[in-house]
Amino acid sequence: MTVIDQLFINAQVFNVYLKKFQSTNIAVQDGQIYWLTNTQPPAQKVIDLNGKYVVPGLIDAHMHIESSMTTPTAFSAQAIQFGTTTIIADDHEIANVAGLSGLQEFMKQPSLIDVFYAIPSSVPSTNPEMETTGGIIDEAATAELLKNPRVIALGEAMNFQGLVDEPDSLIHKLVTLCRSKRPTMPLEGHCPKYTGENLARFINAGITSDHTQQTPTGMLEKIANGMFIEIQAKSLTPEIITTIMEHQLYEHIAFVTDDVMADDLQFGHLNKLLEKAINYGLSPEMAIYMATYTPARRMGLWDRGAIAPGRVADLIVLDDLATFKISAVYKKGKLVSAKQPQKATFSDNLYSSVKAYPVTSTDLKLCVSQVSGTVTANVIAIEPTSTFTAQQQMILQVKNHQVQWQEAGLALLIVQERYGKHLPLQFALVKGALNQPGAIGTTWAHDHHNLMVLGTDIKAMVRAQNQLIKQQGGYLVATNQEVVANVPLPIGGIVSNAPISKLGQQLAEVRQAMQSLGYQHFNEIMSLSTLSLLVSPDLKISDRGMFDVKSQKLVSLFEDN
Amino acid sequence: MTVIDQLFINAQVFNVYLKKFQSTNIAVQDGQIYWLTNTQPPAQKVIDLNGKYVVPGLIDAHMHIESSMTTPTAFSAQAIQFGTTTIIADDHEIANVAGLSGLQEFMKQPSLIDVFYAIPSSVPSTNPEMETTGGIIDEAATAELLKNPRVIALGEAMNFQGLVDEPDSLIHKLVTLCRSKRPTMPLEGHCPKYTGENLARFINAGITSDHTQQTPTGMLEKIANGMFIEIQAKSLTPEIITTIMEHQLYEHIAFVTDDVMADDLQFGHLNKLLEKAINYGLSPEMAIYMATYTPARRMGLWDRGAIAPGRVADLIVLDDLATFKISAVYKKGKLVSAKQPQKATFSDNLYSSVKAYPVTSTDLKLCVSQVSGTVTANVIAIEPTSTFTAQQQMILQVKNHQVQWQEAGLALLIVQERYGKHLPLQFALVKGALNQPGAIGTTWAHDHHNLMVLGTDIKAMVRAQNQLIKQQGGYLVATNQEVVANVPLPIGGIVSNAPISKLGQQLAEVRQAMQSLGYQHFNEIMSLSTLSLLVSPDLKISDRGMFDVKSQKLVSLFEDN
Repeated sequence: MTVIDQLFINAQVFNVYLKKFQSTNIAVQDGQIYWLTNTQPPAQKVIDLNGKYVVPGLIDAHMHIESSMTTPTAFSAQAIQFGTTTIIADDHEIANVAGLSGLQEFMKQPSLIDVFYAIPSSVPSTNPEMETTGGIIDEAATAELLKNPRVIALGEAMNFQGLVDEPDSLIHKLVTLCRSKRPTMPLEGHCPKYTGENLARFINAGITSDHTQQTPTGMLEKIANGMFIEIQAKSLTPEIITTIMEHQLYEHIAFVTDDVMADDLQFGHLNKLLEKAINYGLSPEMAIYMATYTPARRMGLWDRGAIAPGRVADLIVLDDLATFKISAVYKKGKLVSAKQPQKATFSDNLYSSVKAYPVTSTDLKLCVSQVSGTVTANVIAIEPTSTFTAQQQMILQVKNHQVQWQEAGLALLIVQERYGKHLPLQFALVKGALNQPGAIGTTWAHDHHNLMVLGTDIKAMVRAQNQLIKQQGGYLVATNQEVVANVPLPIGGIVSNAPISKLGQQLAEVRQAMQSLGYQHFNEIMSLSTLSLLVSPDLKISDRGMFDVKSQKLVSLFEDN
Repeated sequence: MTVIDQLFINAQVFNVYLKKFQSTNIAVQDGQIYWLTNTQPPAQKVIDLNGKYVVPGLIDAHMHIESSMTTPTAFSAQAIQFGTTTIIADDHEIANVAGLSGLQEFMKQPSLIDVFYAIPSSVPSTNPEMETTGGIIDEAATAELLKNPRVIALGEAMNFQGLVDEPDSLIHKLVTLCRSKRPTMPLEGHCPKYTGENLARFINAGITSDHTQQTPTGMLEKIANGMFIEIQAKSLTPEIITTIMEHQLYEHIAFVTDDVMADDLQFGHLNKLLEKAINYGLSPEMAIYMATYTPARRMGLWDRGAIAPGRVADLIVLDDLATFKISAVYKKGKLVSAKQPQKATFSDNLYSSVKAYPVTSTDLKLCVSQVSGTVTANVIAIEPTSTFTAQQQMILQVKNHQVQWQEAGLALLIVQERYGKHLPLQFALVKGALNQPGAIGTTWAHDHHNLMVLGTDIKAMVRAQNQLIKQQGGYLVATNQEVVANVPLPIGGIVSNAPISKLGQQLAEVRQAMQSLGYQHFNEIMSLSTLSLLVSPDLKISDRGMFDVKSQKLVSLFEDN
């Protein structure tokens, strides 16, 4: 008889196939589950679980590591503490900054959890005429990525027109390429509000999942039409849970994190969604099912998502099932400790990605040809409950050629191209952002990640902009005296190499400082960063100018008199 | 608004995601389902289904086309009448006869149904020292097959020792290759009786399905350990259906045909299993689910197995749900007619595959060195209820050096190598086979398909053998006067190009003629053909001699005195 490495005894083990817990011992050999047995085969080590619950490691089928502003290495060391043992990462932020080579640098970083990849399908999110990025994921890059067996999906296709009407669009070409090279590979989607014929057209293009915010009716329609639904935190409502239970939709749903801010990552990951779902009345069994077995099956990962022979021995031991309280996590049979022995390393290129020139106060003067009088400005109005904005027109005073935006209670927003093209600065005016003197600057500006500064004080704005160049990226808040809060993001201008505890603290300080300047939004960090996101309505700004998102037309800051 | 090709109205459509029927219209465009709608969008053609049930085309996840002794083309024309619109074919018979090039010839034949492929994983079923085949599917051939996107699985891995204990075995190498090139591809298995640790070891090798005969207990154990179960006709019992329903095992099961004899194929295909399952108490909904959605999902075929946007418009219209009575079949939106316009064509090589020399009566004399007395013979005893055999010893008289097997009520079995190596004839004696004078000859002899003749009359045996060479393969019955029943199989010696109606009739005649000679078995054709199958216990014979299957040792016909 084989002497196995480890034997877990006295365990209540979740069987995903039968959807119930069973008393069984778990024999682990070479990091994978060898045998479920009620016998006690000879083992090097016996671990008595004293009747505790054991469930498979959690699998996050849709997420972006860079949303947490951290490296795959630091991310993995943190997320694994919360039971996440496998992720399917769509690293589209680093792809925007550094293209295929950036992706490949991320892919080779050490990680405590297993990382599979979805191909970023919208880099750039619009096109090179509307936004400058540091890289493009085109057909050639996609073909290269498809050679990698760890690449197992196409990530969130979102360009509806391109998919359904434009055979020459980048997304159409990428879908065709994936279908040809990997016909059985899942093509993941992002389709927030489509219904009826439009939803059908989206699915006809081959996209069979959605991870955007769900309503009960919308989710049911999508599933009935053959979509797999990925429930992220903002979709996780009591009504959604009730709908899942009422229609028994378990087979077609997985919980995912999508974006987790670094300060939240200190306190939990995918486990937080399970806690919440159970709290809303879902059985722990089905909550676990939808965070283990269904994402594994969706992604074709036959070797995990279950505690069964031949699967990787990724195990979570629970103190309490009803609250999903984690007692211990085993990765490939090894107990996960809080230590983080691995270290991420990146090329010099990624450490010198902010190729922008320092601005002066003069650069930030908003001048018009007329000497005085008024101008009509197209203003971005922030919506405090979403990442959408509204477009408003305001009449502003002009004095000695200078537009008097400050006295109108507005903030000035600049976006500076930072990939070495030295394009002119772009300006916008923002309503509802700040009410105190100061500035917020960042190179973490979705999706192109050019350099962006929002401010009410020119000296503070100059300070913020200059400091971002000096430290090669970050997210910071400045007054005219000093930088008051700062998250350095020196890797590609979007990622920190600090431990999550330190990074989370830094980000919490920036968030606090933004609030002190009067920024009002449920997620200040994401709100500011998406003022440059050209695929999220209504009026946004990139390094190429201000755009009406729906029409994809340039909008001038001032109307012609 | 798009003008669609076809609109099916007044339909009760099975929604596999919600597992229920819904009233909806089906809009079909370019052979795929465009939209499920309660509106009536403009259409070139409107088809009123008058409230009939519509279900997805059936998907057969495990089958061998050559089991029906026919071409992919003729097979497809027949099976599609019964609602089978997609098959995953493991063409291991033609691979045994003609290797990779034979497989590739089969793969390029026109077909009315969509054919995907599982890689034959056991060609030869043992090794070249135990049986001569016309081809070998080795690592190089497998690597070539993996380049083909229609190849989506590894077919029925069965070599337990090779998988679990022998890293140098062919099957171990093929599994490793598949895991490396296509980590998400399903690896299909054949594991009849394994349980406990042996079952676990089999699954540890990466094999996650089984299609052999199931018992309720065995099936439950396999599913609880992470196997997908493919239920073929011989597994389909009332007890199995009860177990599926009691434990809600629907997600982990598909109905498959495996082998359908040509005479049975005249009357039904996968639909017969659904009829039977429903008859045993399974709801029509779940029967359909396990013949459409689950096999598609198992095989990663996201584009079918459901009536939903973007899926191929493979539709079955039912007159009656409870009896699965088919009214019409639509393939890619086109009504299937009984006409068969396509024609299979094969190379000259495949038409001249029986490279054996004609035998004479002298060749078939069973001589020993002794002049007279007795010899102890190791005899193959047929079991009338399975393809297993038993090994028996019998004492036979010798007269003038010739063993007197006829007077002991035995039949003589010869196997002749037919791939051009001109190896010596091999002899066996069979008990319980024939009780009338005559002979049965075939080149359809699993798995190596050498030339095999079983007889009680030497002249009849010579006639059968000579005729098989003349017609380059077949399955026939002869007396000393004439060939009384004959299925010519000129393509690779195992496949007919005749229409299924004619082929089925021919095969029924051979079956009848075998019965007239006294052959007693529930499937005479398969029983005789598996006397040469070296992976099915107990005592079998190949062109290399007689083998004890369990020990894989050569067994001499006569014991030494």
